[in-house]
Amino acid sequence: MSNLSGPFLSKDFIGAKADFNSSNIVLLGMPYDCTCSNRAGTRFGPQGARLESVGIETYSPYFDKDIDEDINFFDAGDLEFPFGNAQKALDITKKNVDEIYSNGKKLLGVGGEHLLTLASVEAVLKYFENVAVIQFDAHCDLRSQYLGESLTHSGVMYKIAQLIGYENIAQIGLRSGEKEEFETVKKYNTLKTKKEELDCFKDKNIFLTLDLDVLDPSLMSGVGTPEAGGFGYVELIEWLKYLKDFNIIGADIMELAPDIDITKVSSATCAKLIREVLCIL
Amino acid sequence: MSNLSGPFLSKDFIGAKADFNSSNIVLLGMPYDCTCSNRAGTRFGPQGARLESVGIETYSPYFDKDIDEDINFFDAGDLEFPFGNAQKALDITKKNVDEIYSNGKKLLGVGGEHLLTLASVEAVLKYFENVAVIQFDAHCDLRSQYLGESLTHSGVMYKIAQLIGYENIAQIGLRSGEKEEFETVKKYNTLKTKKEELDCFKDKNIFLTLDLDVLDPSLMSGVGTPEAGGFGYVELIEWLKYLKDFNIIGADIMELAPDIDITKVSSATCAKLIREVLCIL
Amino acid sequence: MSNLSGPFLSKDFIGAKADFNSSNIVLLGMPYDCTCSNRAGTRFGPQGARLESVGIETYSPYFDKDIDEDINFFDAGDLEFPFGNAQKALDITKKNVDEIYSNGKKLLGVGGEHLLTLASVEAVLKYFENVAVIQFDAHCDLRSQYLGESLTHSGVMYKIAQLIGYENIAQIGLRSGEKEEFETVKKYNTLKTKKEELDCFKDKNIFLTLDLDVLDPSLMSGVGTPEAGGFGYVELIEWLKYLKDFNIIGADIMELAPDIDITKVSSATCAKLIREVLCIL
Amino acid sequence: MSNLSGPFLSKDFIGAKADFNSSNIVLLGMPYDCTCSNRAGTRFGPQGARLESVGIETYSPYFDKDIDEDINFFDAGDLEFPFGNAQKALDITKKNVDEIYSNGKKLLGVGGEHLLTLASVEAVLKYFENVAVIQFDAHCDLRSQYLGESLTHSGVMYKIAQLIGYENIAQIGLRSGEKEEFETVKKYNTLKTKKEELDCFKDKNIFLTLDLDVLDPSLMSGVGTPEAGGFGYVELIEWLKYLKDFNIIGADIMELAPDIDITKVSSATCAKLIREVLCIL
Amino acid sequence: MSNLSGPFLSKDFIGAKADFNSSNIVLLGMPYDCTCSNRAGTRFGPQGARLESVGIETYSPYFDKDIDEDINFFDAGDLEFPFGNAQKALDITKKNVDEIYSNGKKLLGVGGEHLLTLASVEAVLKYFENVAVIQFDAHCDLRSQYLGESLTHSGVMYKIAQLIGYENIAQIGLRSGEKEEFETVKKYNTLKTKKEELDCFKDKNIFLTLDLDVLDPSLMSGVGTPEAGGFGYVELIEWLKYLKDFNIIGADIMELAPDIDITKVSSATCAKLIREVLCIL
Amino acid sequence: MSNLSGPFLSKDFIGAKADFNSSNIVLLGMPYDCTCSNRAGTRFGPQGARLESVGIETYSPYFDKDIDEDINFFDAGDLEFPFGNAQKALDITKKNVDEIYSNGKKLLGVGGEHLLTLASVEAVLKYFENVAVIQFDAHCDLRSQYLGESLTHSGVMYKIAQLIGYENIAQIGLRSGEKEEFETVKKYNTLKTKKEELDCFKDKNIFLTLDLDVLDPSLMSGVGTPEAGGFGYVELIEWLKYLKDFNIIGADIMELAPDIDITKVSSATCAKLIREVLCIL
Repeated sequence: MSNLSGPFLSKDFIGAKADFNSSNIVLLGMPYDCTCSNRAGTRFGPQGARLESVGIETYSPYFDKDIDEDINFFDAGDLEFPFGNAQKALDITKKNVDEIYSNGKKLLGVGGEHLLTLASVEAVLKYFENVAVIQFDAHCDLRSQYLGESLTHSGVMYKIAQLIGYENIAQIGLRSGEKEEFETVKKYNTLKTKKEELDCFKDKNIFLTLDLDVLDPSLMSGVGTPEAGGFGYVELIEWLKYLKDFNIIGADIMELAPDIDITKVSSATCAKLIREVLCIL
Repeated sequence: MSNLSGPFLSKDFIGAKADFNSSNIVLLGMPYDCTCSNRAGTRFGPQGARLESVGIETYSPYFDKDIDEDINFFDAGDLEFPFGNAQKALDITKKNVDEIYSNGKKLLGVGGEHLLTLASVEAVLKYFENVAVIQFDAHCDLRSQYLGESLTHSGVMYKIAQLIGYENIAQIGLRSGEKEEFETVKKYNTLKTKKEELDCFKDKNIFLTLDLDVLDPSLMSGVGTPEAGGFGYVELIEWLKYLKDFNIIGADIMELAPDIDITKVSSATCAKLIREVLCIL
Repeated sequence: MSNLSGPFLSKDFIGAKADFNSSNIVLLGMPYDCTCSNRAGTRFGPQGARLESVGIETYSPYFDKDIDEDINFFDAGDLEFPFGNAQKALDITKKNVDEIYSNGKKLLGVGGEHLLTLASVEAVLKYFENVAVIQFDAHCDLRSQYLGESLTHSGVMYKIAQLIGYENIAQIGLRSGEKEEFETVKKYNTLKTKKEELDCFKDKNIFLTLDLDVLDPSLMSGVGTPEAGGFGYVELIEWLKYLKDFNIIGADIMELAPDIDITKVSSATCAKLIREVLCIL
Repeated sequence: MSNLSGPFLSKDFIGAKADFNSSNIVLLGMPYDCTCSNRAGTRFGPQGARLESVGIETYSPYFDKDIDEDINFFDAGDLEFPFGNAQKALDITKKNVDEIYSNGKKLLGVGGEHLLTLASVEAVLKYFENVAVIQFDAHCDLRSQYLGESLTHSGVMYKIAQLIGYENIAQIGLRSGEKEEFETVKKYNTLKTKKEELDCFKDKNIFLTLDLDVLDPSLMSGVGTPEAGGFGYVELIEWLKYLKDFNIIGADIMELAPDIDITKVSSATCAKLIREVLCIL
Repeated sequence: MSNLSGPFLSKDFIGAKADFNSSNIVLLGMPYDCTCSNRAGTRFGPQGARLESVGIETYSPYFDKDIDEDINFFDAGDLEFPFGNAQKALDITKKNVDEIYSNGKKLLGVGGEHLLTLASVEAVLKYFENVAVIQFDAHCDLRSQYLGESLTHSGVMYKIAQLIGYENIAQIGLRSGEKEEFETVKKYNTLKTKKEELDCFKDKNIFLTLDLDVLDPSLMSGVGTPEAGGFGYVELIEWLKYLKDFNIIGADIMELAPDIDITKVSSATCAKLIREVLCIL
Repeated sequence: MSNLSGPFLSKDFIGAKADFNSSNIVLLGMPYDCTCSNRAGTRFGPQGARLESVGIETYSPYFDKDIDEDINFFDAGDLEFPFGNAQKALDITKKNVDEIYSNGKKLLGVGGEHLLTLASVEAVLKYFENVAVIQFDAHCDLRSQYLGESLTHSGVMYKIAQLIGYENIAQIGLRSGEKEEFETVKKYNTLKTKKEELDCFKDKNIFLTLDLDVLDPSLMSGVGTPEAGGFGYVELIEWLKYLKDFNIIGADIMELAPDIDITKVSSATCAKLIREVLCIL
């Protein structure tokens, strides 16, 4: 970019390729956090993960793949949002995700609050039929409204269910919600506790959405609403390994709030998860 | 409240009276922070100030008054807002502030983001003529919009100027803004650097709005957008002393973000400032 | 309380009822921390848990109960103690706990240092016979003195044993203590590692005391003396589920030191545990 | 001490001599903090200052002295106190300070809470007549009791006044206290705002007590009760320079709470102040 | 860069132009910190300043210039260094700085430890005669060696003096060093306390080096060796304003350690200083 | 040491004996951190562990031993290193470790960066034949160079393998490294996942090296390069218990970076691990 000889550290996520056109996957930062009901701060999530990515290896021993050598992804950077207007943030996100798929590539979104997954799924539905969403999350996210607002990070799966039906939703790691949300979960049997329960989705086009609070807050303290009793890292990896052979057409990793996690363990762990998800996309 | 004999610590701001009706001043928490452009977190401001108030004395040596003995104020607690909808937050605020003045009392708002001052001023205008606003702030807050949104904490004074005119606005401590904002400041001569420049407001009904970032971030790090080069505490007190004999009909102290300030010095200092402003209300 | 229309956030623990008289359980804050031998700070524990309770749900999926709808508890607030005088703190605590039971209600104490459990148990013994204490803790707390002082948080179970006998004490999660303390544990067989070992207490009146450091410091860093090797959250929940059918006449959750835990994960987890213990009281 | 050749870092305060007998000044750590009314943590103060002393120079450009070359002091380490018993802590302190003076040396105490200054002054009074105390502090510390306790860090100067009379007390930097305390200050004219007001103490034997919260919390956030509006470092140095020619027979620097100050700026600044006070002892 | 429509947040310092060739100034990150004697962490300095730059305005009210509109600078990113080898880091730095000047542009270095200024000055000397260095710093940095090592951040000005002579060095803000260093300062009269003392450098080619610890640690806690008694922000700005008409041929702003400063006030203040120095380059 | 009667807190690790000559084990601090590739700060590791040791018990319930009563160890303090020169740091370390073994004692090193283990092993090889190294670590540490430097903490096991052969290396807990490193691991079968795989080392002289990042960062956040998916504390203890009957001739516990871990849980856990390793040395 400059005439200097360097060497220079990259400003992109580690292992990213410089060329959009020849890449297969686009990492897209979605730094929005205005509808979260507890602590904000996920607007700094994508940049936090990017920065800590220099501390991880490009090689994943879990998947025996190297995201530098074996994966071809482009880091598009972070979208810019007007704060305080959720609908505009959704519109901007949907438009850019649409452009990723219209270019024949897959999305790896990095958030930012979970509400934006709604925009990604809406964009994807234009390009794929038979779509199912697999959600890793501590929270049901099935509220129809929160304090009178319908666009909220705690209702994103309710909105998605309106689009694809509850039968196309699998929820993993749930441990927090209102009584009514858990009744919905029970009614539609969306909660999956064994990997084989996902097998019915093997012929579907899967959008994978990972709310980082599915991990236990001992490891992942950098989220707005920590919920004790979550997965350990290896437990989550086992689920991802099981999904390796599914037809994953897009994914996002949401809700990193790096300022809360001042040891940066959450950001470093998010960076590793981005690496692992790149391996199965 | 209970049948227990205690003694109990109060859940209110130190020195507050238990009775709304016989009080003269109502401390009202306004925990909203959704339009801020940098770090969020001011939604925890009022509670942060309340908690740290136990560490300060009720007696102010600067004003030789004791807020427990000499001032009669009620702590109404914190309003509850739907996140992500600025207009609703303004509506709720305006309605409650209106009720304070309809009961013949004065407001001491504690924020929360600066945008809400707009609602307080709107409510006050129903009860008073000849209103002027004196603003302590690092930022001009004179933008007509921010990334396309007109309701934003960086445009609150622009909105207020539409209501009362620039000639009724005094700005103290400004040191950050866009070129255009500073041109407006110059055009209308709103920036005051000497206390005597305020004398023309002596016959006005003054609403005092204090954005905590007017203080230097060395002391007040717990704000979303710290700007070096601000006031020291004593410097601010000197201004407040000068205002002692003005006709202050309401006030707010905005933009405390206690999570950022992990030493709690910002919250403790905000609690002290609440004490001082109570002394001049 | 005021004439304002709000809506207002509660200053109480989430789901608490406003009326003492019609409640069955009284949540009582015990913010004392003067005999702790390592880091202090548990004096801010009850308020820390109360504040973070806004981030949890009132519904517990573990017990399928909602503390707002299904449980009737009152949040009495925090006692006020003179610092530096342990005996006075015990006296104040005992008097207030006595009043809770004289009103036919149960205590849920929130600490504050573990020593205060002594006062609660002493108060309870006036109203119940056949009392046993089940203690979750990393530390034996069986010292007869610490640096010459007999009133100390590391000796609370020794003091209680003098009152009810070692045969009425069950200790769960122990992993730290002096050689002599572990010899006492062995001698009286107080350490329980399997749930069924508690069955002999089924016909007793159980006082449940939960020192938060029984949890691993990975999750519960906000305690004065963190001890690696502790329980995960689900492991602790399993024990609480087992106790669901026991006759629990009172409980406390002690030793939260929120300032140490700057991510607030400890406070949020403590708030959740308060919810779970409310479900089995 | 060992047979290893090293080189080793010292465990003592930088520049301290290894030999007690040939030293003139004894640095004595007083890690007690049980009567403080707000945040505790000063028990870690002496060790915090010692650790950060490696980051400062032994040479003071303010006094043109080097504490390694020009001053002969011994670092005795930290006393061990039983927590929760203020009287015992005072007794232990008094006994050790007595031994310092019985050996013909001067004390430089490092705290720990301000109450312990009472023990130091009591010890000194056995060896000197005509003693005056010069106190740098944000707080008056003139309460006769606090919540019913007479031994408290907020009453240490009241206790000392009983011993030497208010006419032998000079207070510098006061900006917080109860109305009654400030009335006492006024009555006895103990507050000094100009250096020349100290001249009447020139023929006295001065014990210098420095509560670190005299400094503004922007610089010295690591104290239990931060009070905005305090001295800058240079302002304090100017006072110390003025005292250079006074007959200072002992000193202490109290109330450092290093855990609160996670940037360690407070500890480093305390270490520098120890250096400066060594230069005028 | 991509085919996406965005809008996207920039990964560069705010206001930077995308084109190296047409720019006049090159901002170059120098993330090295291996010879620092106290806390490390300045290797994250340039990225910390870049990230926080989104929170500042591009317009400087102090210089009435907008770095977006009025200044033409390019952000080259951060050099990559092998850790543990100071000479290689100097070589890489010198080579890249040389390339900046060979392209007819000026350097604005952002560190990173102060030692690297040696490489920048060496590079500059190839292109300019009559070079003087104006240093803002708390520390003299005049040691010929530190624990046996000659390449160290506390000796950078000694090394530079060997190149250009002490008569071409001005030091501002000094308040820490060994006795010998201050003797050198006195001998060569390098310390300047009044702005007019710089006038003799008006006909020189000035390289301006700013160690952030020249600011008081109350504001600038994010440095490895904080030294109380430093400049306030406005005081430093006054010096920079005085230098506006000097012939500044290059500059650097060194020693930001953002991890230490968890409120990010230091990083935000560094970003502002970068803006101000861009205005006078 | 002084003539004062105390009682005094020790400046040594808890339970250490004051006499070098009669001790069997020497705890040696190795505070060096200049080649680490991510966050630095392990130079404060030994002192961090020492300070937090006051919060643990001297009795280990896991090994039923008391390091005060049953173990005879001396705390030699921390070596002093010139920063920025890795070879000198290795030389100083090797010389001192040599002196420990020449006095017939065993080393327990506390780091500091992992590179220094190379010096310890080199020293040990002079006194023992048939040496094997058992490494607990998240990282392979098998790089021949890192950015062109061969002396680096990520290559320490490569260097050791050159000395004793890969067949004498056992690696436990690995989960991060370059593809090439994992190929070496596979080729030489150095990774052990079952305790019995260590039995072939029963007749060897074992040097035990424990990089703290083998523990999961949920518990051990205070390391430069946290890697999710690590051991829990009990899991690590089980391995140490298995090693109890092996012939361990020396050990080190490396890479504690206490500043990162502001809750101090990492330092406290490191102190406990030092206790456990003392029990099996």
